[in-house]
Amino acid sequence: MSESYKKAGVDLNSAEEVTKKIAGLAKGTFTEQVMKDIGAFGGVYRFPADSNKLLIASADGVGTKLKIAASLGIYNTVGQDLVNHCINDLLTMGTRPLFFLDYIGYFDLEPEQVTRIVEGLSIACSENGVALIGGETAQMPGIYGSGDFDLVGFILGTIDEEDIVDGSSIQPGDVIIALNTNGLQTNGYSLARKVLLDSGEFSLNDKPDMLEGNSLGDALLAIHPCFYKNIRELMDKHIAIEGMAHITGGGIPGNLVRILPDNCRAIIDISNIEVPPIFELIRKTGDIPISEMYEVFNMGAGYLVVVKCENKDEAIEILTQSGVRAVECGKIEEGTKEVIVESAS
Amino acid sequence: MSESYKKAGVDLNSAEEVTKKIAGLAKGTFTEQVMKDIGAFGGVYRFPADSNKLLIASADGVGTKLKIAASLGIYNTVGQDLVNHCINDLLTMGTRPLFFLDYIGYFDLEPEQVTRIVEGLSIACSENGVALIGGETAQMPGIYGSGDFDLVGFILGTIDEEDIVDGSSIQPGDVIIALNTNGLQTNGYSLARKVLLDSGEFSLNDKPDMLEGNSLGDALLAIHPCFYKNIRELMDKHIAIEGMAHITGGGIPGNLVRILPDNCRAIIDISNIEVPPIFELIRKTGDIPISEMYEVFNMGAGYLVVVKCENKDEAIEILTQSGVRAVECGKIEEGTKEVIVESAS
Repeated sequence: MSESYKKAGVDLNSAEEVTKKIAGLAKGTFTEQVMKDIGAFGGVYRFPADSNKLLIASADGVGTKLKIAASLGIYNTVGQDLVNHCINDLLTMGTRPLFFLDYIGYFDLEPEQVTRIVEGLSIACSENGVALIGGETAQMPGIYGSGDFDLVGFILGTIDEEDIVDGSSIQPGDVIIALNTNGLQTNGYSLARKVLLDSGEFSLNDKPDMLEGNSLGDALLAIHPCFYKNIRELMDKHIAIEGMAHITGGGIPGNLVRILPDNCRAIIDISNIEVPPIFELIRKTGDIPISEMYEVFNMGAGYLVVVKCENKDEAIEILTQSGVRAVECGKIEEGTKEVIVESAS
Repeated sequence: MSESYKKAGVDLNSAEEVTKKIAGLAKGTFTEQVMKDIGAFGGVYRFPADSNKLLIASADGVGTKLKIAASLGIYNTVGQDLVNHCINDLLTMGTRPLFFLDYIGYFDLEPEQVTRIVEGLSIACSENGVALIGGETAQMPGIYGSGDFDLVGFILGTIDEEDIVDGSSIQPGDVIIALNTNGLQTNGYSLARKVLLDSGEFSLNDKPDMLEGNSLGDALLAIHPCFYKNIRELMDKHIAIEGMAHITGGGIPGNLVRILPDNCRAIIDISNIEVPPIFELIRKTGDIPISEMYEVFNMGAGYLVVVKCENKDEAIEILTQSGVRAVECGKIEEGTKEVIVESAS
């Protein structure tokens, strides 16, 4: 898929092959309470067994954004990145997050540095009413190098069965709204690091003109926004949501396609979506085709919401008032479960 | 605490300092549904909010046992180690495990190798009625070295509030039963590796006399046993269990102390516990004081069960019939929340 990304050490085809194989193994373990055919962004489990309540669970990491944090000695933001990322993933189903657990693997971090990571987790948890109920810190010499660490999160949320949002009600004529984001969120860092840093082109303290006064480090560490409060506003005001996608690895096409019904395609018009300058810096510096940029990065669209056309204006107004830049960015047409990003080729 | 362990790159004092600091941060996020004062081995959350049902969640890793697996190119057993470890942790509260999610961070594992890891997870999940409902594989160049990986698990289980086992009913006169294990389970590998391998004393294919025909690699990769079915037998036969401890990092003293009431101490008599030969090999090779061995390793006691004296014989019989070597290994006395390991000094 992405040649540039493969050269940066991340092989998306191989990742896809792995995903398919392990999905088969996982299915063999499913019990009656597992809801098999829903949950593009998390596992779904009925609990209690005789109720209409579903538990939604997801595990995720921060990716190599951690390398940037470690290089700059800034440890408190990656925790917020991780919690916000996990909440957004669950949110695509309309899920209310309940609690979170973390894992930190490292070799020689100072207690103060580990504490700062957890401080970030606790800030984002508190902001969203999520309880940080457990976790594990593991000192692992020989697996992590000096200064390196990995940070993993596990989130559990809930939704009543009748309220679940899974994209199945999406129809031709529906409108796609993009919630604007501030940078890479937590995806595409291996490619960004290779292009900007490993190449020797920039250092993290540089302030390239394109970043309008910000340092490269600041731009790359911008905290992954949490869209929970914004989407809650829509729900509280009873705006029907047909589907949602959190734009992570794979960009708009790779994530939006996961919620499309078989008879629908999405046409994305990128012209309304404000692209944070860091993406233009990566594209120019790495001479990466624009189509590939959209396959790896969110390109400014942090989260997508699909609504009926007649609800579009009210939805955009509510979202805007909730404090996020929300713009119409596409439509659903009849077609075969695919996403076409226009003017990105 | 352990000087040898510190020299191997694992600083238990620093780990304890971290644990204290982050516990305070976590508490600040607690919502009403979090059960604060129970759950020595996992977080506890009431769900649904108005019910007697508790969700128990725990996160854990496999530690540097992963290095042994990677060196030998054996990827399927560490998944079983992890699931069994997590189930045992939850089991200490009497919890029934429901589902599991995994995270695999790596750089250049082959799809086949990642698949083997998940195969191990799925085997242990199936054996225990646990659904593997999700996970994440993250390719992270720059954080993991060639061939290295980390494997993290998140488990969720449930118990009704009135059935929870938390050690609070432990009283002087109670008896401690040890369930025998086959090796290090998933703890103490950094020290074991340093003493046996990094020292140049042995290689993984060696068959030291002390291991009675087994290779060092086989002994170090012995799969962490799951004690769920054994303990379920006790429960199904209505044997009252006062407390349970899974013997992980910190050995018998570090784990048993977590469930003792303030007015109780535990006296452990190690003479009945069969010590797998790998521990004697580590002790002799590293010239490690026996007291320190008991502070780092399980020394053959994989899991402890505390019962009233009058239930001891029946409990041991049921456990033995369930297929595990179960022996009386100590008693509860009046005292101050401490564990004394006799004949280990």
